Amino acid sequence: MIYLLTLFLDNKVDILYCETTMGTRRLLLISNSTLHGSGYLEHCQDNIKSFLGSDVNRVLFIPYALTDRDGYAAIARKKFESLGYKVDSIHEQPNAVDAVNNAQAIFVGGGNTFRLLKTLYDQQIVSVIKKRVLEDGVPYIGSSAGTNVATKTINTTNDMPIVYPPTFDAIGLVPFNINPHYIDADANSKHMGETREKRIQEFHEEEICSTVLALREGCMLLVEDNKATLQGVTKARLFIKGQSPTEHDPGADLSHLLK
Amino acid sequence: MIYLLTLFLDNKVDILYCETTMGTRRLLLISNSTLHGSGYLEHCQDNIKSFLGSDVNRVLFIPYALTDRDGYAAIARKKFESLGYKVDSIHEQPNAVDAVNNAQAIFVGGGNTFRLLKTLYDQQIVSVIKKRVLEDGVPYIGSSAGTNVATKTINTTNDMPIVYPPTFDAIGLVPFNINPHYIDADANSKHMGETREKRIQEFHEEEICSTVLALREGCMLLVEDNKATLQGVTKARLFIKGQSPTEHDPGADLSHLLK
Repeated sequence: MIYLLTLFLDNKVDILYCETTMGTRRLLLISNSTLHGSGYLEHCQDNIKSFLGSDVNRVLFIPYALTDRDGYAAIARKKFESLGYKVDSIHEQPNAVDAVNNAQAIFVGGGNTFRLLKTLYDQQIVSVIKKRVLEDGVPYIGSSAGTNVATKTINTTNDMPIVYPPTFDAIGLVPFNINPHYIDADANSKHMGETREKRIQEFHEEEICSTVLALREGCMLLVEDNKATLQGVTKARLFIKGQSPTEHDPGADLSHLLK
Repeated sequence: MIYLLTLFLDNKVDILYCETTMGTRRLLLISNSTLHGSGYLEHCQDNIKSFLGSDVNRVLFIPYALTDRDGYAAIARKKFESLGYKVDSIHEQPNAVDAVNNAQAIFVGGGNTFRLLKTLYDQQIVSVIKKRVLEDGVPYIGSSAGTNVATKTINTTNDMPIVYPPTFDAIGLVPFNINPHYIDADANSKHMGETREKRIQEFHEEEICSTVLALREGCMLLVEDNKATLQGVTKARLFIKGQSPTEHDPGADLSHLLK
């Protein structure tokens, strides 16, 4: 706010430039919070730091995907503080809507996607987050369930439907679906449950569906306005209805998915 | 109907006995349609035949969990005909409600549980199936998704939520939940998605939840009125909120779950 005021006193051109910058959609959608063999958010900590940069001082954490919100906030706080950011957990704030409206940056943690989405609706912050991110340019980081709810719908979550949300429509920060924790079929498995690929194909059998970007563990999607880039160390698999799935390396430009 | 009329002409005691028999809840809830290395319903075909017996001639098949209903009906028909039963698929009938009302026995096949439950509601046959099974004693066989929808809710399905049903409440033929295709955690896995046990524990973290009977592949539950017995070749794992999970062998009496 002070920054804006300073610019206002400076000159008008700068204000307009600043407003454009502030309105840029900025997302970091991470497949998984913890990669096998490393600590919480360790595999993506450089990406987070690069994404948030030095303009952000405080991150609003949304721990609704787990029931132990205090414990979860402590874990997130420890990690983000090690990267130089203070954490305010939304459950510690007097008013969730105000907390989102005042946030410099938002991080939505993983856990159960159904519980998370239902709570976002219960707290009436789905549209508030959407406005803050798409109109005000507040950076959004999601991990696992926090990535699911950032997309068009939660139709491609892997989670168990332990509670009934009022809709599967999610925040809609991107116009497609993501499947986090994507896992390839194990040819040696004797288990007869559907493979992940089969499940996504079943989603595409339905009339109402959308493109699914499947992020393997270790993979994430960086969105800067209308540019989408794969980051991380693993490939993503893209499912477009009626087409064969395609593989995409880290660094790949997937901006066409944003149209 | 003729059978009842004959009895009526015979004597009143027989009618009452017959009505009691007809009203007996009879369920065969199978974990999985296909066991690794064997054919469709092959691992449970003896259980099916013993369950349906010789009084049943025709089985009403409900293929709503898959989109290719014709293909699915052909597979089910081939199998059931090999066991001596004719199959009418509900999607070939002019009226779904009439089909359920006229059914001698019902078999609900596996596939996607969300699609199945939504279609059961769309076709307005949830309460009709419930009445037929609980009041009229029509035998019900469910496999995988067909087992999920027979229970209290679909909160413990493993399936992807590809469509949004009007509720997660299911037919309610038993007062608990089942998790089919139950799989133990793989200690060697490097995948960081939640284990099945963790997912069921998350369900039990919620205020509204119920006991979960986890049926490993190869396992099934036979319910005859108020008696519930495990069948098959694998153990089941029972999750009661606030208690440690317990293991149960084939042949175990789980009738207490029906109370």
